Amino acid sequence: YWRLSPFVRILSTITLFILLFGGVIHIIEPTTYQTWFDGIWWALITTTTIGYGDLVPHTLLGKIAAIALILLGTGFVSTYFVTLSAKTVSRENALFAGEL
Amino acid sequence: YWRLSPFVRILSTITLFILLFGGVIHIIEPTTYQTWFDGIWWALITTTTIGYGDLVPHTLLGKIAAIALILLGTGFVSTYFVTLSAKTVSRENALFAGEL
Amino acid sequence: YWRLSPFVRILSTITLFILLFGGVIHIIEPTTYQTWFDGIWWALITTTTIGYGDLVPHTLLGKIAAIALILLGTGFVSTYFVTLSAKTVSRENALFAGEL
Amino acid sequence: YWRLSPFVRILSTITLFILLFGGVIHIIEPTTYQTWFDGIWWALITTTTIGYGDLVPHTLLGKIAAIALILLGTGFVSTYFVTLSAKTVSRENALFAGEL
Ligand SMILES: [K+]
Ligand SMILES: [K+]
Repeated sequence: YWRLSPFVRILSTITLFILLFGGVIHIIEPTTYQTWFDGIWWALITTTTIGYGDLVPHTLLGKIAAIALILLGTGFVSTYFVTLSAKTVSRENALFAGEL
Repeated sequence: YWRLSPFVRILSTITLFILLFGGVIHIIEPTTYQTWFDGIWWALITTTTIGYGDLVPHTLLGKIAAIALILLGTGFVSTYFVTLSAKTVSRENALFAGEL
Repeated sequence: YWRLSPFVRILSTITLFILLFGGVIHIIEPTTYQTWFDGIWWALITTTTIGYGDLVPHTLLGKIAAIALILLGTGFVSTYFVTLSAKTVSRENALFAGEL
Repeated sequence: YWRLSPFVRILSTITLFILLFGGVIHIIEPTTYQTWFDGIWWALITTTTIGYGDLVPHTLLGKIAAIALILLGTGFVSTYFVTLSAKTVSRENALFAGEL
């Protein structure tokens, strides 16, 4: 695991988080989240802070699971986007410098 | 209070903000926010900028309270996510360096 | 104007933007945005990327105005939150240092 | 392409991404995204993480396209906003210094 680059590790941690919480919410609120994929879709839309509102937990337990996902998962997703941003900009700059 | 780490202080300030504004909106618009927990849920979903839209203030006073929450609370929540991001990355890097 | 602190200037630029685009969308789509305040509320919810979805432009012209607001306004609001974040953290750190 | 400033390149990359994914989702789910512009509007609202929820993919294939857009596009849009932020602040500071 530690032989992987930080970027790949962050991405795999996020994937694990989303798969896990997607499964948890599907078990807790099967009437809202009818499949595991429904849970995964919701967990991704939530942690990226897009929040379409097409799937929202209605039970107290479902909302508590959502709060846990938000407090733990959003930091990782922010890290991913910032890392991706920094990578893109530095690669662009490197290419730009190479061209001149 | 000042003996606590900055991370814990930010987290407790956010919690206080969300509990406070959750209560305020429940008092201002009880038809939309029927319980204190409804208010807390809405305040968290708003300050994290997820914004599901399942609970939205409809009265002028409720919207003014929401504007106050957004202008004051979102900065704290951003700080929390950035701090959590930085902590995660630096801990990962430390662990990574230790492994090599 | 330049005698004001950067924070106050950013905040007043955002306020101006939101008042302006709130008025523009109210004129362009009065069936969706029935009052100027409806437009202001929508412009704030949009530039902060909360996006409740309670008010969404339905006409082509309304959507073009929204795209302009998003491309121009969101950068200013990000700046505001980052500045507020930095101010909060540095003030907290200063207070923390003073206490020890 | 490399003669352009980084800001213009990021903006044109985002525009390309949004035009492309807007077209892809219109082809995949024509019942939800009835025009190319509907797809473009949705791709912009999604990558900026506003997420109104007025247009949401309902099919598995549409959701997979959305996940690809989110994982690839959001980083570019973050870069755009951060760059715009930094430009605004530094120009403001330059103007401020010039005034004194
Ligand atoms: K939203
Ligand atoms: K959102």
